[in-house]
Amino acid sequence: MPVEDQDFVAVEEPLQIRIGDRNISVTMRTPGQDAELTAGFLFSEGILRPGQIAKTECISNTATVTLTPGVELDDSALQRNFYMTSSCGVCGKASVESIEAAGCTIQPRDSQRFDTSIIPTLPDKLRESQQVFDRTGGLHACGLFSASGELVIVREDVGRHNALDKLVGRAFLDDRLPLANHILLVSGRASFELAQKAVMAGIPVLAAVGAPSSLAVKTAHRFGMTLIGFLRGQRYNVYTAAWRLE
Amino acid sequence: MPVEDQDFVAVEEPLQIRIGDRNISVTMRTPGQDAELTAGFLFSEGILRPGQIAKTECISNTATVTLTPGVELDDSALQRNFYMTSSCGVCGKASVESIEAAGCTIQPRDSQRFDTSIIPTLPDKLRESQQVFDRTGGLHACGLFSASGELVIVREDVGRHNALDKLVGRAFLDDRLPLANHILLVSGRASFELAQKAVMAGIPVLAAVGAPSSLAVKTAHRFGMTLIGFLRGQRYNVYTAAWRLE
Repeated sequence: MPVEDQDFVAVEEPLQIRIGDRNISVTMRTPGQDAELTAGFLFSEGILRPGQIAKTECISNTATVTLTPGVELDDSALQRNFYMTSSCGVCGKASVESIEAAGCTIQPRDSQRFDTSIIPTLPDKLRESQQVFDRTGGLHACGLFSASGELVIVREDVGRHNALDKLVGRAFLDDRLPLANHILLVSGRASFELAQKAVMAGIPVLAAVGAPSSLAVKTAHRFGMTLIGFLRGQRYNVYTAAWRLE
Repeated sequence: MPVEDQDFVAVEEPLQIRIGDRNISVTMRTPGQDAELTAGFLFSEGILRPGQIAKTECISNTATVTLTPGVELDDSALQRNFYMTSSCGVCGKASVESIEAAGCTIQPRDSQRFDTSIIPTLPDKLRESQQVFDRTGGLHACGLFSASGELVIVREDVGRHNALDKLVGRAFLDDRLPLANHILLVSGRASFELAQKAVMAGIPVLAAVGAPSSLAVKTAHRFGMTLIGFLRGQRYNVYTAAWRLE
């Protein structure tokens, strides 16, 4: 029987990202933490490095970045970004190589190991923190955990890439990049885009509640990032760099 | 206890979309049905109308469209697309209005009604057809149903927007647009992007297994499309144009 009632829905609105008077991108996002989203987007696209943002003004769905005095916008980085996202024929191999061109390096094999007993505890911690924010069922979440399994940053958005940009942007603004010795958990699937952003942020372990894509696996393998998928209950699959878990 | 095993993962690779020698876009997609994806993308972005594609050649992750003789590419449509997706400050209102600018009209109130008893049967039909394709857990699906609840077209992809572009592209290539008297079911959430593509294709009912976003609700309301969310078991929420269900 139909019942009329009120329902909460997740807010989705466009955000224009500008550097000075140059339009860089528009993304559909959940409003809030727009300065973080802007910093995380510009960092993970290889356009700006930590320390290059002096301030970000967010007014009516437009975020305008002012660069630190002396910093020049790198036109080749902007062109590479445009090349990647909207204009050029690329194969999967070129997509993976473009991450390298953006200044990303392979994770060292002597980096920290992670205790496998922590992994199954992460989804519940993320969900508990989500319930506070989310009455809509319409938000993707990502959480950054310390090596001991403590939730450090959690961000949500209608767009999965935005949730991760907000998280990385928080670390950018706090000058905590690269995020070595951390585990990133995403609430959905692991796509190339999420793997690319995790690699750019120097995160050694990416875990997803859902499935990984083939290009996410290739990217994680190429950069020595540990990729975990189907993390549900006590079970999970490890697709790459399993040596980091012990 | 760790076990080494093989796992199937959903394939994700970039597709470059070209019209003649002009690069239009790159999308990360699951290979297959690339001509459909290309047609659906170009149609739902307001760049081409049915009958304007003579042929599409798909070679190594590049799809090249040849226009029907006499058809000129509409530069203002291309610019509007670029304006929407990458360069300009837009508010939610402008996003919704841009659909109208792309030639979309409000669905008539005297259009066909749909029997509510059909709605709860749709997710199982979609899932059954998905199990044939999907051993990876990594694909989004969308299904087009007739008013009597028969599954007409089903498409899957790592990207939700691609699955819908492939579905609409199939209808485009078969000259079946607009898709009046049909119900579209999407396996995940209803975002602005999916609502926009459904409206462009003239679909009167969009149902989602997951939650709708605020801008999806606004878009459906503006164009008189019935929007259903949280379709699970016998229950679902109707957000807009409930008069169409009886």
